[in-house]
Amino acid sequence: MSKLGYRVAVVGATGAVGQQMLKTLERLEFPVASLLPLSSKRSAGKKVLFKGEELTVQEATPDSFENIELALFSAGGSVSKALAPEAVKRGAIVVDNTSAFRMDENIPLVVPEVNEQDLKEHQGIIANPNCSTIQMVVALEPIRKAFGLKRVMVSTYQAVSGAGAEAVDEMYNQSRQILNNEEINPEILPVGGDKKHYQIAYNAVPQIDLFQENGYTFEEMKMINETKKIMHDDSLQVAATCVRLPVETGHSESVYIEVEQDGVSVEEIKNLLQESQGITLQDDPKEQLYPLATDAAGKDDVFVGRIRHDLDNTKGFHMWVVADNLLKGAALNSVQIAFSLEKLGLLGK
Amino acid sequence: MSKLGYRVAVVGATGAVGQQMLKTLERLEFPVASLLPLSSKRSAGKKVLFKGEELTVQEATPDSFENIELALFSAGGSVSKALAPEAVKRGAIVVDNTSAFRMDENIPLVVPEVNEQDLKEHQGIIANPNCSTIQMVVALEPIRKAFGLKRVMVSTYQAVSGAGAEAVDEMYNQSRQILNNEEINPEILPVGGDKKHYQIAYNAVPQIDLFQENGYTFEEMKMINETKKIMHDDSLQVAATCVRLPVETGHSESVYIEVEQDGVSVEEIKNLLQESQGITLQDDPKEQLYPLATDAAGKDDVFVGRIRHDLDNTKGFHMWVVADNLLKGAALNSVQIAFSLEKLGLLGK
Repeated sequence: MSKLGYRVAVVGATGAVGQQMLKTLERLEFPVASLLPLSSKRSAGKKVLFKGEELTVQEATPDSFENIELALFSAGGSVSKALAPEAVKRGAIVVDNTSAFRMDENIPLVVPEVNEQDLKEHQGIIANPNCSTIQMVVALEPIRKAFGLKRVMVSTYQAVSGAGAEAVDEMYNQSRQILNNEEINPEILPVGGDKKHYQIAYNAVPQIDLFQENGYTFEEMKMINETKKIMHDDSLQVAATCVRLPVETGHSESVYIEVEQDGVSVEEIKNLLQESQGITLQDDPKEQLYPLATDAAGKDDVFVGRIRHDLDNTKGFHMWVVADNLLKGAALNSVQIAFSLEKLGLLGK
Repeated sequence: MSKLGYRVAVVGATGAVGQQMLKTLERLEFPVASLLPLSSKRSAGKKVLFKGEELTVQEATPDSFENIELALFSAGGSVSKALAPEAVKRGAIVVDNTSAFRMDENIPLVVPEVNEQDLKEHQGIIANPNCSTIQMVVALEPIRKAFGLKRVMVSTYQAVSGAGAEAVDEMYNQSRQILNNEEINPEILPVGGDKKHYQIAYNAVPQIDLFQENGYTFEEMKMINETKKIMHDDSLQVAATCVRLPVETGHSESVYIEVEQDGVSVEEIKNLLQESQGITLQDDPKEQLYPLATDAAGKDDVFVGRIRHDLDNTKGFHMWVVADNLLKGAALNSVQIAFSLEKLGLLGK
């Protein structure tokens, strides 16, 4: 039996994802006995709303986690690296939405629809995957389970809210300036800390996160490595090109896959996805029905459409996968992990 | 020796591409003895500028082509189907920028950097390929020639100007309305004549042109079929997913290729493209140098960057290809065909 409620902390409670975490805990009625909103020193003192109550945000320190059972982190990798182990020391389970621990082999990287059972191996910290990875593996896991998966190739169309609230403001400000024939002055995108900044309004920028030595961006490497880890298949071939677009919320992905099994039909894949948890099939070309970022924003599911056979490879399929990057891509998946922990009896022990 | 100039007609002279044709003929100093701007009945009487002179647009009829040596068509497929044969009957060579004749096996489909010699087979009409095809084959032909090409997979990021001036207006109007919290009312995109219309501002729409029975859009099938025809290789594997973005001008493409030859390096490909006609290499991740639609707009070249090895397939490479869809994708390629015709002695005979 579950308890009446858990003592929950949200680290980064004033950020875009933190705000969605509070809303999602409330909306999905996660059993919360007490909610402690934490943040950097800079945001401490701000107010946030939870279940109609105004709560004062406190600065996150190691001692903040005394008596906390569940801590949802989304305040940047350095905060997680410093404070998540402190929270665990004090008995909390941490669900971390940064990239700090994702590739640590002792830390489960979990999308409940795909690898919920990995939670049983946790040692205090559970990592929430990258937004663009989550929606893709949700769409592909039913296919992998039924027909095997050999290869994945993705080109992304990612929303600016994935880069934070300031990036959203920058996009809309640039739009307004361009419409008014004013000068623009890019300062944030594509990557806040990088050397150069480019126009995002009315543009498509093929850089998300910093470049690695191999010519891939860190975002691309996240999609490649995290997909293999979540699916427990190091031999899975994954390739990614990640592109930032002037879209507020909702990542879209052009995904090509090759299955292991021969003779799989588009109808079989559609039927499979239609019955799968967390997926809405939107696929009727005759009616111009396909997923759109503007439709997916604000919704929990991963939307899949435009499923069609490759014209050369009988084991190859193309599809279009869209989800709200702040919800399924971040806050919702973290809260789903919390529900899974509870269901598996791993919480509040 | 070339003559002092040719008697040239531009059909669709008031359209977005027609306007670029006039500007490009003038800018590249194509030898024009006389310029006849033609259009539909609706636009007849309008004025256009050519070499500082105001010319009155006339309605295009079969007799308009009496004494014309070169006719550049860009007024829609039905106009080309009706009038291009009439122009040829009267002795003109037609360069047609619509999809009307592209897949006709007796009609050359030409990108001068790739298959200029095909012009020698013409029987009066030469087809200009689809915008998204042109920039891709320009980028890939040097690689194909040097190392062989087995497979091409592309996801596009296409600008609204490819759907005409009205689509550009719709995008900017929607942007303005959304910034002002006003209702939007999509009426044109994704496809003017289709049943449903969707928001393009702050969105990514995976439909360009009408859907075919096989689940692909006509735009996707154009990229697949035209690439094989231009490269004279029916066994080339080509796959495409075409997506419309809120970008005014400049198509971007995430392209994956597999070459035939073993052991090809990224450096070899970069060196090859750097020396190739019509291509500007923009590829320095350390300096965040990669092609951007906003940079390519207004320029003649095809810009290539983000070239990197696939992490699983030693013959596989990813790259990012950007060009101005109205210039190299349409008007410039048509004018380059005219120059090639002249160079090969095929014009004004």
